[in-house]
Order: sequence, then structure tokens, then C-alpha cells
Amino acid sequence: MAIGEAPSYQKRAVLQHRTDSLTILMLLGLLLLTILTVWLFKHRRFRFVHETGLSMIYGLIVGAIIRYSSQSDHPPRIVAQVIGNQTFTSMDPPDYLAIYLNRSNASDAPSDMVIYSFKGAVAAPLQEPPLERTVTFSPELFFNIMLPVIIFEAGFSMKRRHFFKNLGAILMYALVGTAVSCVVVGAIMYGLTKFMDVTISLNDCFVFGAFISATDPVTVLALFNDLHVDVDLYALVFGESVLNDAVAIVLSESVETYGELSADEFSFEAFLQSIGKFVGVFAGAFAIGGFMGILTAFLTKFTKIRDYPLLETALFFLMSYSTFQAAEAADLTGIVAVLFCGITQAHYTYNNLSADSKVRTKQLFELMNFLSENFVFLYIGVSVFTFEPHRWHAGFIFASFLAVVVARFCNIYPLSFLLNLGRSNKIRPNFQHMMMFSGLRGAIAFALAIRETDSEGRQLIASATMSIVLATVILCGGFTTPMLQWLQIRVGVEESEQELQNMAGETMRNIPEITEQPENSTTAEGLPTGTRLHEKAWLVRKWYNLDAVFLKPLLTNSRPTLIETLPPSCVAFAKMFTTEEQITQGESHHADGDSDIDMILEQNSFSMDGDGLSVGEIDINNSGGDGFKGIDSGNVNLQMQQPHVGISSGSRSEPLQMEEVWVADVSDDGPITP
Amino acid sequence: MAIGEAPSYQKRAVLQHRTDSLTILMLLGLLLLTILTVWLFKHRRFRFVHETGLSMIYGLIVGAIIRYSSQSDHPPRIVAQVIGNQTFTSMDPPDYLAIYLNRSNASDAPSDMVIYSFKGAVAAPLQEPPLERTVTFSPELFFNIMLPVIIFEAGFSMKRRHFFKNLGAILMYALVGTAVSCVVVGAIMYGLTKFMDVTISLNDCFVFGAFISATDPVTVLALFNDLHVDVDLYALVFGESVLNDAVAIVLSESVETYGELSADEFSFEAFLQSIGKFVGVFAGAFAIGGFMGILTAFLTKFTKIRDYPLLETALFFLMSYSTFQAAEAADLTGIVAVLFCGITQAHYTYNNLSADSKVRTKQLFELMNFLSENFVFLYIGVSVFTFEPHRWHAGFIFASFLAVVVARFCNIYPLSFLLNLGRSNKIRPNFQHMMMFSGLRGAIAFALAIRETDSEGRQLIASATMSIVLATVILCGGFTTPMLQWLQIRVGVEESEQELQNMAGETMRNIPEITEQPENSTTAEGLPTGTRLHEKAWLVRKWYNLDAVFLKPLLTNSRPTLIETLPPSCVAFAKMFTTEEQITQGESHHADGDSDIDMILEQNSFSMDGDGLSVGEIDINNSGGDGFKGIDSGNVNLQMQQPHVGISSGSRSEPLQMEEVWVADVSDDGPITP
Repeated sequence: MAIGEAPSYQKRAVLQHRTDSLTILMLLGLLLLTILTVWLFKHRRFRFVHETGLSMIYGLIVGAIIRYSSQSDHPPRIVAQVIGNQTFTSMDPPDYLAIYLNRSNASDAPSDMVIYSFKGAVAAPLQEPPLERTVTFSPELFFNIMLPVIIFEAGFSMKRRHFFKNLGAILMYALVGTAVSCVVVGAIMYGLTKFMDVTISLNDCFVFGAFISATDPVTVLALFNDLHVDVDLYALVFGESVLNDAVAIVLSESVETYGELSADEFSFEAFLQSIGKFVGVFAGAFAIGGFMGILTAFLTKFTKIRDYPLLETALFFLMSYSTFQAAEAADLTGIVAVLFCGITQAHYTYNNLSADSKVRTKQLFELMNFLSENFVFLYIGVSVFTFEPHRWHAGFIFASFLAVVVARFCNIYPLSFLLNLGRSNKIRPNFQHMMMFSGLRGAIAFALAIRETDSEGRQLIASATMSIVLATVILCGGFTTPMLQWLQIRVGVEESEQELQNMAGETMRNIPEITEQPENSTTAEGLPTGTRLHEKAWLVRKWYNLDAVFLKPLLTNSRPTLIETLPPSCVAFAKMFTTEEQITQGESHHADGDSDIDMILEQNSFSMDGDGLSVGEIDINNSGGDGFKGIDSGNVNLQMQQPHVGISSGSRSEPLQMEEVWVADVSDDGPITP
Repeated sequence: MAIGEAPSYQKRAVLQHRTDSLTILMLLGLLLLTILTVWLFKHRRFRFVHETGLSMIYGLIVGAIIRYSSQSDHPPRIVAQVIGNQTFTSMDPPDYLAIYLNRSNASDAPSDMVIYSFKGAVAAPLQEPPLERTVTFSPELFFNIMLPVIIFEAGFSMKRRHFFKNLGAILMYALVGTAVSCVVVGAIMYGLTKFMDVTISLNDCFVFGAFISATDPVTVLALFNDLHVDVDLYALVFGESVLNDAVAIVLSESVETYGELSADEFSFEAFLQSIGKFVGVFAGAFAIGGFMGILTAFLTKFTKIRDYPLLETALFFLMSYSTFQAAEAADLTGIVAVLFCGITQAHYTYNNLSADSKVRTKQLFELMNFLSENFVFLYIGVSVFTFEPHRWHAGFIFASFLAVVVARFCNIYPLSFLLNLGRSNKIRPNFQHMMMFSGLRGAIAFALAIRETDSEGRQLIASATMSIVLATVILCGGFTTPMLQWLQIRVGVEESEQELQNMAGETMRNIPEITEQPENSTTAEGLPTGTRLHEKAWLVRKWYNLDAVFLKPLLTNSRPTLIETLPPSCVAFAKMFTTEEQITQGESHHADGDSDIDMILEQNSFSMDGDGLSVGEIDINNSGGDGFKGIDSGNVNLQMQQPHVGISSGSRSEPLQMEEVWVADVSDDGPITP
């Protein structure tokens, strides 16, 4: 079968996935509608319809719509009926197969018609039944349930400050680096398989390259967190691994698109088209994620749903999960959407939640993430043995190990060199070695590889991917601590202290005219303002400004309000989007409610929660005063906060000045208008 | 097809369900093992294997075991292969069907074998494809995911004191009443369908009786909770509806067993066998639920996992969910198991949790319960239209409404009469009317009815059940408030106040020689000890005593310890099961830590959380001092607590006396040894 000629049942499987996503999305939408109506009823003290009755009525309405409109909406399915001795022959397998059973004495029983549903294509005639199907890792379960949870949590609990500070480098590694890795792996595999007795197409080689370029954030980061590794290294590894999961998914789809468009030879048009698809999918998913986050922020800001923390948490949870399904239903990538949704939710919506819901949402996602992660790795372990279409080939596996190492090398070192040309805060060689070592392959690579295994090439890929995942998670995961020691990367150091030192060191080395304040400085002047200013690109600065002046006041209940930040000409608009909560908001609440601070504090406590050693070491620093067992990092951060704390304790009642707000929101990126 | 001759593919579906349960149980077990190992590693500061690596290694081991042992373990599946022009004829449908596709130019493609999996039997040749399959209520999803959550939460947040006080009446309604209802519905339907143009077997009539006898706890109880209805009425309705769900499920299985054993005529042997099955299933599930709860209590008491609230919460959650799957895998009823597991967890394990985990588990189950409930009713609404094998028959539906009303009448009034003969606290007529009215049918009846619809009778049943569910949830649910008013059942009254009055009233009326203490009495002597004593059966008293002297000290970290409660001869045993935490436990903690009080406080705040009106009304009573937004009920209860509060504030250091412990634990049931 030529590559260009994708069998129509594969298309139908994709269509099925999309329909499933739409269905789930519809149900989620209904649930959201129910929650909002329940809130409205509670709010208005209307008691005659209970929420369950309400759910049912909404369901009835939608069911009726589906019933009487679906004939035209849905793609036609094929049902074949095999009755009696009829022979079934078809070019195209039907979705459902109905078979009449020839029971001897059952001529009066019309019920002996059984139905079969289409499962997929198999490589060879089955020698034995697909026995342990249920114990085998189900990519759909993973992609629909586990993955959204893990990625949302990554975005939600992200140290946004460190992430955005290193955004350029992260994007470089994640976008360019993953593409480089994909191409290198593809080329090496294609070259080496020429000398082996395996049949694998060029396209499949690049698909393998895309799959295996997804590095896993879970294991290394958890260890980094436990060990208090340098924050910049942490941000780089975290950012790369989270974003490149998304990149690898989109990339593999693009390569597949490319494969469908052109057969084995190179086609520039198909290449452009797959790049176009890549950009479109990424941008679309980004837009959906941002939109859903902003919508949630609006819903939580402009309704009084915060009076009912249970409803509020449910709303937050459902909106976030809907994002994933919405992106999937729109044929975009749910993972990118849910990542940005998580970031938006943490940055805006989180500020609007009631104190109760803040704790609830954090703990909920933390628990779900913990269970999902462990479940995924457990499932991978079990599936290695129970997965059916294995094709172990020592040469192929060896080649793939080689390709992965070379590709990681071509990703990290050249890109680090390029990045260091423009960075004042250089990525040091030992960091580069650690990033090279941290390229574990995990659940995403695994799930992508076993999603489709109906050709020999794909089966080779699946088995090789499993080997790589096992080896890297167990070996690299196990040797992370020794490797950190060997590379002389300091661990167990208080992060903020270390960062201040780094920052001081860097600043001193590069721009000696800036005199660094001592570590325990508590004034805003402690900022290396001049330095930071030049580090940021124009776009990033504009974005920070827009965020502080317009988006935060518009979308959250935190001070300052739009009335304070917008020019007087927009006062009508500003008033419309300013709530009473926001105006009456105490300024002390502002300091507390800055979600970035919150998140940073909390993010650390997630993986170290209760870890006696770490808590003991850094508890002294927990002066954020937000009531959580926060542990962190926030030294520079808290230092940034000082002007605010000063303001609120000093009972000054006039609105904040813009400059001050700026300082608080952008943290160590410094004001642009000093 | 005769009833006795169940087609083997139905048996296989049951087997499949059991295998699925086993698989899930195995994965849950692995996850639990991982959590415990992770805890151990953290505890021992062992860092070289991270939890994800660990999960994967455990998975690998189990995968290998499955791989190399399963050939003999699993029931053999059938795979039929239809290749080329081969004709497929079979008595018994295979599980999987592999079909070779006759593609014209694909003679070199070995991959064009597609596989189908067995879906089930259909009633008639399909006229159109089963289009909205995914939008249709999936009984498996409901029974495996939603139902365990809802029922566990019911048990976990139950007001155990009120429940156990009315246990006799509840068991009467749930066990005897449901059986009566099942028989009455079955008989009426069988009688009436004789005059209709429908074919339904006697057995299916009784199966319908069993299905439709499951009353739904969700809607009415939520309203009762909002409205602060009399606690005894609440306990009766709650207890009946929770237990009779389980009874209806087991009953319908028993009736089906009976149907398999005997054809249309009555067989005493088959009848005994189905009663035996009923008792066995109930007892087995009760044992599993209790065992898992006790195991969790042990795990949380004797490990220091409480240092890591995330792990602890995960352990609690997984143990509870495992209970359901364990019972299902053992061919018992998961719903009964999970209900008793919930009760055990609340009564014992909850005491051992860290403060953080207490909040987490409550909020988690609350949210999951909320989402599950609404999702279920939404899904029901959607499915009414998208469900395929409907068979609307006006006569049958009318007959079923009649049967349901008559059956409910035969359940409530005669049983109430019988119960009142032995009760001092009579079930008043207006309570009886309200119980009659509260017999809503909800998710359980719905899910049971659509689980199997491959005969005409079953399709009639499904459509009739849907009609009844819709009508009762929307109408009875909507008219609960007017009905309460019309029956002059007081609402909006502080519960404990009302209870005290009731208690006083009852006592005065029935046993006038007991002088009732004034309501604001704060001493233990306020108890109508003499009265209460005689109300309890010997077994119940024995149980309370065992619980206070042995089980609570053994299973929880609350005082008193076994060393204090057991006779000196058992000191070695007692020491073994007494932890340091328990000994050093402050006595003030004891008063706080009594989970029953906690749960009662919390249970109310669940559905009223943030409901301005209710909070306002009863906030004054929140003197439990446990830090939650507790609202309640606890007046009598708090009164019981007084001796303890006295002790702890009075800095008395010797161990508590047994009598005092007794008073605290048994609440208003009074000491047996005055």
C-alpha cells in the first residue's frame, strides 16, 4: 500500500475521535450550563426546580435536538448486514456489522441478531485472540483523560516568572530543537535501516523522529524540585519538555499530512503545507486556550458564583477540561490549548476565586496530576508485556538509541551556542550537559508510538519507543542525582538565594556599572533595573505593559481597576468592567491575591509537600503570608512585593500609582518607565 | 427463546465485566503499592528511584506475569476469521471477528485485515446505523464510575447517628419494602399485560419490579437538606433510598438467577436459591466494604503517611474505589460494599487522617459527587431521545405508573403500621405520606433498565422506566416543597432544636415518668437515659460497646487507647496496636477528632455550602469548634460532648473512665451501664 493512499477507515477513526470530542464537549457544555443555572437559582432563591431536574430537562432538550437534526449533521456511517448464508465482501469496512445467527430452533426469535463494531486494522491474521486488550495502555484514555490533567497542571502550577524570563531559550529548544531532533532522527533511521532487513518508509522514519522528540517533564522535574536545582536550569528543562510535547504531537501530525500529500520523494508544496498546518494548529490551540481561560475569568469575575465554592470549583474544572475537548473537536491540538488555558487560569481566573476555591482547585489538580502520572507510568510498564503488535529488532532498536543521542546532541549544544550569543545570562556548559542528560522520553512518546501499529514500520517504531522510554526513565531518572553532583550543579540550595547570587554574579560580570544591593535588601531599588530592561525584547515589554494596564484590571478582581489604569476618555468602558468587589478590594488583598506569587509559592510546595528535609531548610523564607504552606523562591519576588506591603500597612487610601503596580506585576523584569 | 436458555453471549458480557473489574482492581492495587513504596522511600530519604520509575517497574513485573500466565487464567475467547469468500455461520457469536478485505490492488498488503468486536444483540435488523451511540447513557460508565462516587459519598457523609437510630425502620423499608414493591409491581404488570398486545414473560415482570423499586436519594434529599426537614424523616428517606438501591440491584440479579433456574412455573428450590444468593451477595459485599475500610484505617494509623497529605489522600481515594472494584470482581455488589466502606472510612479512618487530608478528602468527594450527580441526570435527559431500542406502549406505561404507585403504597403504609407497633418514636402519618411521595425513581432504575434491551419485554421495560424517571424526578422533585407545606411538615427549623423538642415530646407522651431536662441543659444527665436504653436491641448495644471499647481504640488514633480500654491481661496485644500518636494525643483532640461529629457537621454544610439563607439561620449553632464552616444539628450531640470538653479544659491527666467514653461515642443512645 502506498503511503499516499491512507485507507478510509483510518480517516474514519480520526473522524470518530472528533465526534467523540464533540460529544464530550457538548455534555461538558450542558454541565456548565447547569452549574450556571443552579447558581442563578440559588442566587435568586428560586427553589422549585432542583439541579438534578434541571440537568435532566437540559439533557432532554439537547437529546431531542440531536435526535431530530443528526441525520444530516453526522457523517454517514456504514452498516453491513450479513444475514443467513450471504457472503460479505467489501472494499471498505463498515462501522458496524450485524450478523444473523443461525440458531437451530430459533426461527421465531427475532432477537438473534448480533452487532459488531469496527476496531481497526490488524497487521496479520490473528493467531490468538487479542487477549489482554484491557490491560494494554489505551492511547485514547491517555490522550483524553490523563494527558489533559498532567499538562493543565503543568501550566497551572508553572513558575511563570522564570518561564517567561527564559521564554526565548525555551521556544528555541522546544520549536527549533524539536524540529532538528525530528529531522536528525528521521535521517539517521532512514540511513541505517537501509542496511537492515526491515521495511520502513522515509515518512515513517520522520514520524518516528517526531514521536521520539517529545521529552518527558515528569521524572526529571520532580527530582529537580525535590533537590532544589538552579531555577534557570529548572525553567529551561521544564519549559522545553512541556512545550516540546505539544510540538512533537503537532509535528507528527504535520509529517503525516506531508506523507499523505507526497509519496516518497520531496515536494516543496507539501512541505509548505505541513509547515502551514503546524503554525495554524499551534496558533489555533493557543487562541482556544487563551479564550477559555479568559471566559472563565469573566464568569468568575462578573457572577457572584464565588459565594458557592463548590459550584465555582466545578465551573473552573469543567471550563478547563472543556478547553481540551474544544481544541480536539476543532481538529487542533488539545495539549497546547490546555497548557495555555492553565497559564491563563493561573494568571487571571485564579485571582477571582474565593479563598476556599483557591485551595480546592489547587489540591484537586495536584491530586489528579499525581494519580494520572503514576497511572500512566504503571500502565506503560504493564503494556510493555501485554502490548500485542511488537516487533523487536535489535538493529533497529540500537539504531534508534544512537539516533536519539545524536539528535539530542544536535538539539542542545548548537542551539545553546546560538542562544548564548544573545543572552547576558549565559547557559553554562554544565547546564547544557544536564539538559542533554534530561532528555527522558516518557508517556507522550509512548502514547504516540502505540496509537497506530498497523504496518511493519509502525510496529518497529512502537517497540523501539518502548525500549527508549524504559531505558531513559529508569536509567536517566535514577542517575539524575549523581549526574547533578558530577556536573557540579549545586542542589539543596535555597532557590531565591541562589538566584540572587546568580543574578548578582551575572550582572557583575556583564554590566559592572550596576551595583548590586545586598541580599537582605527590602526596598524596590534592590532591582537591577537597568540590566533587566535591556534583556527583554520590545514585544515582551509591550505584552507586560498590556497585561498590567489592561488585561489584569479587566479580567481579575485585583486592584488596580480599569478606572485607574485607563485614560479618562475610556471611563464608561472602564466602569462597565469594574466590579464592586474590585473597587472595595483591600490593597492588602492585592498583595495576597497576586496569583503569580501564589502559584510560585504553591508550585514548590506541591512536590515537596511534607518533605521533612526540604521544609526544614527553607521554611524561614515563607514570609509571603498567604496562609499556604508555601515554600520558595520568592525572595526576589517578595522583595518586589515590598512596595505594596508598605502601602497597605501604611493605610494610604488613594489608588496605586502605575509605576508601583508595574513593579509588583512584572517582578524582576523591572519597570519600563522608571 | 425460552427464559431458561440464556444465550452464552450474555454470560460472556457478565464475564467480561468481571474481567474488566479485575483488571481495574489490579491497576488500582499497583497504584496503591506505588503510593506506599513512594511513602516508604520518602520516609527513608531514599532518592534513587523516582515514583514514576517505580510505577513503571511495578508495571513491568505485573505485565510480565500477565503475559506468561494468562493463557490458562482467562476464559477462552473466540475469534472467527472470515477470509475471502468464506461464509460465516455460527451458533455462538465470537468475541472478535477478523475480516479480510478484498481490495482490488492490495494483494501484497498483509495489513488489510480488519477486526470487529462484539457489541451485543439487537432486537431487529437495523434500519439505520446506531448513530448516537456515544451520546447515549452508558450503563457501564454509570455503574463503574458515577455510581461508586455517589454511593461512597452517601456513606461517607452520612449522619450516622440518625441513620443508626432509625436502622430498624430503614432496614424494614429497604429490605422488606423493596421486596414487597418488587412483587407487587411484578404481579400487577403480569396481570395487566395479559390484556395487552405485548409479550413479556413473568420473569421480566418481576425484573421490572426489582428495577423500578430502586428509589433515588439525590433530588429529594438535596431539597430536604436545603429546607432543613425533620431529621428523622430525613434519616428514613435517606436510609431507605440508599439501601434500596443496593437491594434493587441484588434483587434484580436474584430474580434473573431465578429465571435462569426455573421456567415460567414456580419452583421452590429456585426461589430458595435466589434468596440464598441475595443474602450471600449482601453479606459478602458488607464484609468487603468493612474489610477495606478497616484496612485503610490500619494503613493510616500504623504508617506515617500522614506526613504527606497528597499521598494520604491518594491512598484514601484509591482504597475506597478499590472496594467497589473488588466487590464487582468477586461477583458481589459493589454498591453495598462501597456504601459500607464509606461508613467505615468516616467512622474510623477519617480520625487518622492529617488535618489537611480531612479537608481534601471531603472536598474531593463532594466535588466528584456533585459532578457525577449532575452528569448522570444530564445523561439521562439526553438518552431519552438518543436511546435506540425504545418501545413506547401507552398501555404498558400507564400500567407501570399504576403499579409503581400501588407498590409504594403497599410498601410504606403497612410497614409503617408494623414499625409503629414497636417504636416509641412513632412514624407520624404526615411522615408516611411524605415517604410515599418521596419515592422518586432515578439513575439506578434507569441504568438497570437500559443495561439489557434485547427482547421486546426488556424494551418495554426500558421505555416505561424512562417515563417513570422523568415524571417522578421533574414532578415529584418540583413539588417537594409544596408537599411538605401541605403535609404541615415543619421546614427551615434548626434541626437539633427540633429534634430535642421531638425527643422531649415523644418521651413525655410515652414514658411520662422520665422528667425531661430543659433544652439548654449542658450536663450529661440531660439524657433520657432510661428511655433510650430500652429502645435499643441487645445486638445494637453490644455493637456500640465493642466499637467503643475495642474497634475505635484499635483502628483510630483517637483516645482512649486499647491499653486503657482492654483488661490488663491483654496488655501486650494492646501495646502492639497503640501508636505513639495515640498516646500523646491531647484529649482536646479527642473531642475534635470524633469523626461522627465532624461528619455530621460537614454533611450539612455540603449541600448548603454558601447558601446565604440557611447559613444565616443556623450559624449561631456552630459551636463545634472544628474549624470548618460547620452548620448543624449537633445540639444534642454537643451536649454529649460536654463531659469531654470539661475534662480537657480541666487539665485532668489520668485516662478517661469508660463510662465517659461511652457517653461521648454513643451520643444520645445513652450508656448501658449507668
